[in-house]
Amino acid sequence: MVDGWPCYARIDGPLVIVGFGSIGQGLLPLILRHFEVQRDNIVIVSADERGQDVASEHGIRFIREPLTPSNLEAVLAPLFDRAGGFLVNLSVEVESMSLVRFCHKVDALYIDTCIEPWPGRYEDPDSPMGLRTNYSIREDALAMRDSLKGGPTAILAHGANPGLVSHFVKQALLNIAADCGLEVSVPETRQGWGELARKLGVKGIHIAERDTQVADEKKQKGEFVNTWSIDGFLAEGLQPAELGWGTHEGYLPANAAEHVFGCRAAIYLKKPGASTRVRSWTPMAGSMTGFLITHNEAISIADYFSLFDADERVTYRPTCHYVYHPCDDAVLSLHELEGNAFEAQTKHRLICDEITDGVDELGVLVYGHEKNAYWYGSQLSIHETRELIPHQNATGLQVTATVLAGMVWAIENPKRGLVEADEIDFKRILDIAGPYLGPVVGEYTDWTPLDGRTNWIFPEEIDESDPWRFTNVLLR
Amino acid sequence: MVDGWPCYARIDGPLVIVGFGSIGQGLLPLILRHFEVQRDNIVIVSADERGQDVASEHGIRFIREPLTPSNLEAVLAPLFDRAGGFLVNLSVEVESMSLVRFCHKVDALYIDTCIEPWPGRYEDPDSPMGLRTNYSIREDALAMRDSLKGGPTAILAHGANPGLVSHFVKQALLNIAADCGLEVSVPETRQGWGELARKLGVKGIHIAERDTQVADEKKQKGEFVNTWSIDGFLAEGLQPAELGWGTHEGYLPANAAEHVFGCRAAIYLKKPGASTRVRSWTPMAGSMTGFLITHNEAISIADYFSLFDADERVTYRPTCHYVYHPCDDAVLSLHELEGNAFEAQTKHRLICDEITDGVDELGVLVYGHEKNAYWYGSQLSIHETRELIPHQNATGLQVTATVLAGMVWAIENPKRGLVEADEIDFKRILDIAGPYLGPVVGEYTDWTPLDGRTNWIFPEEIDESDPWRFTNVLLR
Ligand SMILES: NC(=O)c1ccc[n+]([C@@H]2O[C@H](COP(=O)([O-])OP(=O)(O)OC[C@H]3O[C@@H](n4cnc5c(N)ncnc54)[C@H](O)[C@@H]3O)[C@@H](O)[C@H]2O)c1
Ligand SMILES: NC(=O)c1ccc[n+]([C@@H]2O[C@H](COP(=O)([O-])OP(=O)(O)OC[C@H]3O[C@@H](n4cnc5c(N)ncnc54)[C@H](O)[C@@H]3O)[C@@H](O)[C@H]2O)c1
Repeated sequence: MVDGWPCYARIDGPLVIVGFGSIGQGLLPLILRHFEVQRDNIVIVSADERGQDVASEHGIRFIREPLTPSNLEAVLAPLFDRAGGFLVNLSVEVESMSLVRFCHKVDALYIDTCIEPWPGRYEDPDSPMGLRTNYSIREDALAMRDSLKGGPTAILAHGANPGLVSHFVKQALLNIAADCGLEVSVPETRQGWGELARKLGVKGIHIAERDTQVADEKKQKGEFVNTWSIDGFLAEGLQPAELGWGTHEGYLPANAAEHVFGCRAAIYLKKPGASTRVRSWTPMAGSMTGFLITHNEAISIADYFSLFDADERVTYRPTCHYVYHPCDDAVLSLHELEGNAFEAQTKHRLICDEITDGVDELGVLVYGHEKNAYWYGSQLSIHETRELIPHQNATGLQVTATVLAGMVWAIENPKRGLVEADEIDFKRILDIAGPYLGPVVGEYTDWTPLDGRTNWIFPEEIDESDPWRFTNVLLR
Repeated sequence: MVDGWPCYARIDGPLVIVGFGSIGQGLLPLILRHFEVQRDNIVIVSADERGQDVASEHGIRFIREPLTPSNLEAVLAPLFDRAGGFLVNLSVEVESMSLVRFCHKVDALYIDTCIEPWPGRYEDPDSPMGLRTNYSIREDALAMRDSLKGGPTAILAHGANPGLVSHFVKQALLNIAADCGLEVSVPETRQGWGELARKLGVKGIHIAERDTQVADEKKQKGEFVNTWSIDGFLAEGLQPAELGWGTHEGYLPANAAEHVFGCRAAIYLKKPGASTRVRSWTPMAGSMTGFLITHNEAISIADYFSLFDADERVTYRPTCHYVYHPCDDAVLSLHELEGNAFEAQTKHRLICDEITDGVDELGVLVYGHEKNAYWYGSQLSIHETRELIPHQNATGLQVTATVLAGMVWAIENPKRGLVEADEIDFKRILDIAGPYLGPVVGEYTDWTPLDGRTNWIFPEEIDESDPWRFTNVLLR
């Protein structure tokens, strides 16, 4: 806790941070700033030496030990020697559900920023494609939720996206309702939120992100450059593209597949997200092309806003997916990756302190309603980020601010069992994360995925009956 | 003519340069260096003030007057007041064939670096797509060749590519033959060249280019950055993708169309080249993705090497097309362009003196023979370029050196009528251009378009019967 900053809670038990890359290192100062916590009670467990200097600068114990299925218990159990613990998972390739099960046993709170599997799940050519999806990983999590039956709060996938954007969606719906002159009270149930979305005529939601952060040093040949975990981006980029599949769509895209198990809220394309291009719009970028990278929120949001009839047939669901325009050097990295038959670059460069300019513009484009489309989100610049906190970039701060807020909510609501972002009090999260998000703006637009294309000099598969159908969003 | 440099010829008549952008400005010093010519005899006619300072620095007359169908004669005729003239066309949007016809009338030599139409031909949605192709423009030129029946030499499309690469192909074939231990004499006819290519088992030729030139100032939003004419690149990028269509292909791609007139050596895709991605290989880049931008050489080379039976049915033809990986900032410019439904950026930045590093690696990948594939071409760096000539980048010098060589050949062969690069003495051209091309290297590779894809975790349309079929080259 630091003078002049709000103190949100006290953490008495052990606080263990697993993984200490760009996000872990960014979160630590926020924890020290906003919680009453003894530094002795904090331990970092990570696979490599990255951030060890940062840890010791803050006087925090650092254990360098990659977690594996076989050592997880042995490494972590001694650290949770008393109740009231909190495990914050900011690693890659450590299975979230193993950590959740462990936390359930030792009665510790849990949070992560995406549901991770152990290594290998996404790369196995013999594994059915449907099991390489986030859909299937989420279904595993939901099954465990049912089997654990409550217990300590474990928040899944609560970073910027997945995470923050689920809360943006709710605020956006309320703003649209107000701007349409609809008198609504804030829904208190999932059903209520779904009804609001349907009432507004919402057809779908893009998580529309344009990252313009840039460093002086250009991308070199054989190098992958990004503003956050390159391992994480490569892993999700080579999963099948996935999207929550709305009721307005009508028919499946050519190379799509449906799932034969679970909630059925989403489909996947038999193509990696890293080579699936889609159209969207943000206030600063305007009309743009991004990549349809699979993300947990695409599925959880579509599922959360679904409405059903008495026979449990879906009657309303928004389409939902990510349209990610990463920083320019990452676009070039993806171009090179595709050109090398997706064999990953060996050099990785996560840019942070060397960034000279740029904004991570991250929000939700809620479309199909009376006012066409509404983007709501954060336009956090690298410069504002540096005024808020040192050694972080804008992408990172959007994540860590949301992790901080999730931690507060978990401490305030410690017995909720497994929860997804969509089930959390969005106002509380936005209140806590808000001061770290730079300008949070809402903007309407007339743009649709058919803009500039109806009199185009090349034939295209266009569905003019509804500009917002996914077939119009997908580039071919 | 400058001391210490070879003087290739004397130009007595008027020398008129139409267009004075990056290529025109780069060519002028080469003309002054290698020809015996009076500065008074040189006139530049251009549409804007670009390069006016360069012209006056060299003491060359500069007429600022955009040529149009209606003023062309009036502006140019007075400049060709006596015989022995030479018109060098380095403009955009001035119809090549109008200039050729004019030169025929005033008995002047002619050269250009691509066959240009008047503005509008590529953008008219009502014009049949087949008429927006380079194929159709080339057919117009061939028809004019027949109608003009000889006359002063007019060399069409003789820059780097189209141009230089036609000569690279011939040298590459001879090198492959030698390396395969085949004793061949240098063919002297089109038929002879076709037979050599067939004998070697050549299935096709990529014009495989990777430009790595880079400047400190990053591409800004709404800006198109490139190392040569941005108007030119935008125009060809929005033509349909085109390729010479080889006899080994077997079947047409899904969105392809054949022509119903002309030589039938090429097909086109119903998609702009700027969004058609294809795989190729260069020595420095390795496996890479480029854009299938339509180019005259894709058609002229495929046509030139075609063999026919007694019934004029084609029996052999190589596939031929461009695989262009422009400089990184141009890749980002194309990405932005695609995201904006191909509405061109309003800011254009042609980088030259501000380039800090990079190589334009431009060559031909001749594939399908006993030794798989052979890349032969120029690896000209910006640094070597600057030692050879000031105020030019590597891309420009590859073009201007070839224009220089073409001018020499035209003066030495003044009565050939319309000719294409493929019909010119390749050795003479390579001898003259060679000193300006940096390292000219030949390299064999085991790479094929199926590399790294046969055990890939996503299903792909792959033709394993022949790795070199176009269906394997095209990204989907
Ligand atoms: N939801 C969001 O908005 C969001 C945004 C960014 C990142 N993320 C996720 O947050 C996580 C961290 O991102 P980052 O940018 O900090 O990643 P990073 O690559 O910078 O760091 C990853 C960290 O995980 C550690 N690690 C790897 N294997 C481990 C193992 N077996 N045991 C323990 N630690 C291990 C590494 O040592 C490293 O410290 C990733 O999973 C990423 O996908 C989520
Ligand atoms: N074959 C090749 O390898 C190759 C390579 C590069 C460029 N090119 C071609 O060379 C040409 C010149 O390229 P650049 O990079 O110098 O282009 P640029 O855009 O830099 O310059 C074009 C020039 O054309 C002039 N122009 C435009 N309209 C005109 C008109 N109506 N009348 C007279 N002049 C007019 C402009 O004023 C300008 O000086 C283009 O056609 C381009 O496609 C060919």
